[in-house]
Amino acid sequence: MRLPLHSLSLISRSLSDRLSAIPGRRGVCGAAMRLVQFCRQGDEGGVRVGVDRGEGLGVVDLKAFDPSMPMTMRELLEMGTKGMQCAQRALEVSPAQCVVPFAEVRLLSPILAPEKVVCVGMNYRDHCLEQNAPIPKEPIIFSKFPSAITGPFDDITLPDESQEVDWEVELAFVIGRKGKHIKEEDAMSYVAGFTVANDVSARDWQMKRNGNQWLLGKTFDSFCPLGPALVTTSAVTDPHNLGIRCLVNGVAVQNSNTDQLIFKTEQVVAWVSQFVTLSPGDVFLTGTPPGVGVFRNPPVFLKKGDVVECQIDQVGVIRNNVV
Amino acid sequence: MRLPLHSLSLISRSLSDRLSAIPGRRGVCGAAMRLVQFCRQGDEGGVRVGVDRGEGLGVVDLKAFDPSMPMTMRELLEMGTKGMQCAQRALEVSPAQCVVPFAEVRLLSPILAPEKVVCVGMNYRDHCLEQNAPIPKEPIIFSKFPSAITGPFDDITLPDESQEVDWEVELAFVIGRKGKHIKEEDAMSYVAGFTVANDVSARDWQMKRNGNQWLLGKTFDSFCPLGPALVTTSAVTDPHNLGIRCLVNGVAVQNSNTDQLIFKTEQVVAWVSQFVTLSPGDVFLTGTPPGVGVFRNPPVFLKKGDVVECQIDQVGVIRNNVV
Repeated sequence: MRLPLHSLSLISRSLSDRLSAIPGRRGVCGAAMRLVQFCRQGDEGGVRVGVDRGEGLGVVDLKAFDPSMPMTMRELLEMGTKGMQCAQRALEVSPAQCVVPFAEVRLLSPILAPEKVVCVGMNYRDHCLEQNAPIPKEPIIFSKFPSAITGPFDDITLPDESQEVDWEVELAFVIGRKGKHIKEEDAMSYVAGFTVANDVSARDWQMKRNGNQWLLGKTFDSFCPLGPALVTTSAVTDPHNLGIRCLVNGVAVQNSNTDQLIFKTEQVVAWVSQFVTLSPGDVFLTGTPPGVGVFRNPPVFLKKGDVVECQIDQVGVIRNNVV
Repeated sequence: MRLPLHSLSLISRSLSDRLSAIPGRRGVCGAAMRLVQFCRQGDEGGVRVGVDRGEGLGVVDLKAFDPSMPMTMRELLEMGTKGMQCAQRALEVSPAQCVVPFAEVRLLSPILAPEKVVCVGMNYRDHCLEQNAPIPKEPIIFSKFPSAITGPFDDITLPDESQEVDWEVELAFVIGRKGKHIKEEDAMSYVAGFTVANDVSARDWQMKRNGNQWLLGKTFDSFCPLGPALVTTSAVTDPHNLGIRCLVNGVAVQNSNTDQLIFKTEQVVAWVSQFVTLSPGDVFLTGTPPGVGVFRNPPVFLKKGDVVECQIDQVGVIRNNVV
């Protein structure tokens, strides 16, 4: 599905709003921006990094603005402050010849080929209640392979191997700088920003096969739609107080708030960085609220032709056709 | 630990042996080679790809031989046949100015930054017997993050967070070309070669924490030593009939044969490629034979100062100090 890109601008805040950074909540990037990866229509191979101008005003192509800038978000994040400052300048200046109109943009996942896709299970209070499960005392960490990542408006492919494919809207965040043993109080300074994820899950494989290891059920190709933008931490008022919803064929099936998160961004960063070195571009999916298909009575699963829309206030909307 | 590189040549077969490809068992590369990644002593940042000449005759630096060749094994594999043919020519010609003497070589993991590290659990008959576990009817798949990978002679760092760090010698293989839904009979043509892995495991985290998801216990930094070389499929007589051993401080703690593998290379490739697209550089760890520390009575775990050596006939030896 090629995206109706104007839909982005509906949920994008105004330029002046986006530029008013929230003091004290700064991540890797002090500026409020919506960073995207895209290719120009008809140039499917060419990944570009851009800054969304909001209000349907198009995307500033970062490499067109400054040829020394990289082609991918991961490389941009690896550049650190210099890359973010350049993106901020690009947004402020927005030279006409560097602005790609929305009609010519095909949005990709804001991160491709991260080193890690880290997922947190059972991380919403109301999702635990839904399945009569105790509130975890520690984060439960599992993973997807990066090959599962797909774009914010790309298709979710139902595999022949599963009959129980389910939705899970999740707040995702992206690491902006390298770190190990990060303290909770420092954690947000390692986060580049937030995005919307659908942690698509084959419940048969997750829950009944593979020796109870969730990996296979979580990692079929196309089971990790991400986007539409990497919204820098400064552009989000409070990541732990955002409306979060999933709609299937226009009907709200999940409708909660990130204030129900048991382990918040800072805690998850601190926890996981005990085990592994975090690197720029690492993607974290923070868990899903109640309303998934498998716990409905009777259970409901995705079928070909369904449209799944995941919404998080201030962060954005992704919409994926099931094929 | 800087490696005593001559140890490599002890297990490397002679040049003429290595060049005699085994008909009918060809992988991505028809030629018998030991491909390595290395940096020159004193140039720690510069990853190079090379071909081990065996018998202590040094490593041919592929980029020195042909400047159009890439700096990393993953990129070399992504080039396909052209890259492999160039490596084969480099080995055959071995111009003196392209040969780096062993004394100047520091071997790295033959693959860094793969998209996936796929692991198979409970995949040796004798390892299942050891723990009174049934023989699995399907492969059990879990993963490590690529950040766990370390070099064949680098240190294993004991994390403060675990008191139960264990060894697991494993035959690993590396994917040489992209594929999905690969048939068993075609599977070997997707495999570039084999290498030795230690699937280092924090048993407390694997078995008693994290909601029974093995990931965290398996993926601490440095928990995936790999090497010493990517031994192309043609250089291995029969990957499923190789002596496989682990020595801790010189004492054999694991001693089995890959003929005990329940799901062999072809079956594992076919199985996993049902779920995910495989890509050049993907690393598979095929499971460990009996003799791990956790199932000893009383259990034995690694401590600082230990030396763990993993050996697989025809493939090689890795040796890691525990610090």
